[in-house]
Amino acid sequence: MRTLTVDLGERSYPIYIGAGLLARADLFKAHLTGRQVAIVTNETVAPLYLQKLEASLSGCELMAIVLPDGEAFKTWETLQLIFDGLLQARHDRRTTVIALGGGVIGDMAGFAAACYQRGVDFIQVPTTLLSQVDSSVGGKTGINHPLGKNMVGAFYQPQAVIIDTAVLATLPARELSAGLAEVIKYGLICDEDFLAWLEQHIDALRALDGQALIEAIERSCAAKARVVGADERESGLRAILNLGHTFGHAIETHMGYGVWLHGEAVGAGTAMALEMSTRLGWISSDERDRALRLLIKAGLPVVPPAEMTPEHFLEHMAVDKKVLDGRLRLVLLRRMGDATVTDEFPREVLDATLSADYRALVAQLDQ
Amino acid sequence: MRTLTVDLGERSYPIYIGAGLLARADLFKAHLTGRQVAIVTNETVAPLYLQKLEASLSGCELMAIVLPDGEAFKTWETLQLIFDGLLQARHDRRTTVIALGGGVIGDMAGFAAACYQRGVDFIQVPTTLLSQVDSSVGGKTGINHPLGKNMVGAFYQPQAVIIDTAVLATLPARELSAGLAEVIKYGLICDEDFLAWLEQHIDALRALDGQALIEAIERSCAAKARVVGADERESGLRAILNLGHTFGHAIETHMGYGVWLHGEAVGAGTAMALEMSTRLGWISSDERDRALRLLIKAGLPVVPPAEMTPEHFLEHMAVDKKVLDGRLRLVLLRRMGDATVTDEFPREVLDATLSADYRALVAQLDQ
Repeated sequence: MRTLTVDLGERSYPIYIGAGLLARADLFKAHLTGRQVAIVTNETVAPLYLQKLEASLSGCELMAIVLPDGEAFKTWETLQLIFDGLLQARHDRRTTVIALGGGVIGDMAGFAAACYQRGVDFIQVPTTLLSQVDSSVGGKTGINHPLGKNMVGAFYQPQAVIIDTAVLATLPARELSAGLAEVIKYGLICDEDFLAWLEQHIDALRALDGQALIEAIERSCAAKARVVGADERESGLRAILNLGHTFGHAIETHMGYGVWLHGEAVGAGTAMALEMSTRLGWISSDERDRALRLLIKAGLPVVPPAEMTPEHFLEHMAVDKKVLDGRLRLVLLRRMGDATVTDEFPREVLDATLSADYRALVAQLDQ
Repeated sequence: MRTLTVDLGERSYPIYIGAGLLARADLFKAHLTGRQVAIVTNETVAPLYLQKLEASLSGCELMAIVLPDGEAFKTWETLQLIFDGLLQARHDRRTTVIALGGGVIGDMAGFAAACYQRGVDFIQVPTTLLSQVDSSVGGKTGINHPLGKNMVGAFYQPQAVIIDTAVLATLPARELSAGLAEVIKYGLICDEDFLAWLEQHIDALRALDGQALIEAIERSCAAKARVVGADERESGLRAILNLGHTFGHAIETHMGYGVWLHGEAVGAGTAMALEMSTRLGWISSDERDRALRLLIKAGLPVVPPAEMTPEHFLEHMAVDKKVLDGRLRLVLLRRMGDATVTDEFPREVLDATLSADYRALVAQLDQ
């Protein structure tokens, strides 16, 4: 088992990474304050792993809240089911909410924990690669609003993140690829060595090689913990974690939550950020192409939806949380392995990026 | 103008108290970060004070969100109207939400500010006596759930509390009395001198004497600031501010939100807490009667609803936020001016308190 720490003063917490951690009752019990535990999970994950987790929590006053599966359910209505369950079972302020699932479950269970009786403990047990390397670490919680993704939420840190890599065995290949979008992101924004490592191990990762997975998850979580430790509430640096996300959120919102997986939208959004960084002259077209090849080898889309016009993108991007005083700020690459958040770009370059021919860009990769 | 400080380290903020502060543009502008301001108010307050506040905010990118009035609207559905308004007007993370209204508006606008884009600035401008002396100070925000009052919310501190005592001129007498319930509370829980002062000035307060109001509000806010400064997240001491509230919340929940005003329910709930403290032998029946007389002179009910049985109370009190590991904790008086939060009471004394004859208790006061 590997152990990392997210260093946030009195809100610091450990990340445990290893195969089979769901069965480690000692890990869970070390992080419970009271006797009550509410496991929040979904209809897909519950039949696979709920019993195993419940076995590790024997002796607790235990309840399970099983939600419908998917980004389309990351809404107030679904969140309300968590509050209903907690209140009906009379869970008090010393209860612990455990999120057993992917990013949607983690975001919703975390936000419910942040709000229930103005805040109770919670533990993240992420079951998708995307949530293991990204959303379970750092305390961003929330739900979607019809007008924008993650627009309602809280910064609220868990007591611990417990990552059982064995659960990836049941993860659909499409979801694994979606998680790789965020793994590749860390290489692009802050770790060029990791990018090189990923180029060598991308096939092993897609084949679920245990050692490769642990290595990739640990390096990803370490990068995330570093950034979050330096800027918990995204007043500056933390925004670099949003590489590809401003374009990606526009895709998710436009297409309808859940039609594109978050990681897929980030894949195409990252391609757009790469293209824009190239047009600004910050990275070369060879560097852009190297990153595009890696995204494609990871099984990710790098072409935005044909039905989305530049106007569609601009409309959705106007409500991005990085907009300040009316100015759009984007995460772009100054160099490979070095991202920046900036509003200093000519409007024409953004327009050209939004109307670029990404199909042609992919076609020329093979030449 | 009087100025107090709520001392919470980097989350410290001032409370300004005085007649005519709504017109003090300088006070408001000193606490704005960005150019956008969203005033959240209700249909009752807007016609009276919205224009005056807007005049003090000239030059800002201003919007007003006018909600229906009343505790019955302290729900997710109403909260959603705030998020809708903010998103439609494309307010960003640097916006400031200003709560212009009573406790319901302050709680909802504060919770919206806590959650919108995971947290934006807000300023409390309380317009009822109750919100001026209690709910606007200390950062408790939230909404009601059908199964319990304030069950969903956040601890989220404002940038400033701006209390214009002149607005009390338009407050209905019933609301003024409701506010006095919380004023009297501070005397009972931590300031016996203030209790004696209140006995002398209760008629002046009900007659809206300007100096008496400022004095009562300042002493109340100072008491609240002291308690909150010592225990922001209610891990201990802060719970004493809930004197009468556990019984009172049961009344509010049972009768339907808004049928009894919060302060009225606290009045009757305080009578019950006084009776229980007397039955435990902690205060004398003379002391109880002295406090009951003050509550009655303030225009408050001290008899719980005839239709509520002890079973009704127990059912609603079981979901109180002070319940820990299944044990009910109550705020009771050890002495006049000295409250405690305790689960150490014989069950029979609670049962006797719930089935006591409060009409008879009032009747004997006049003998």
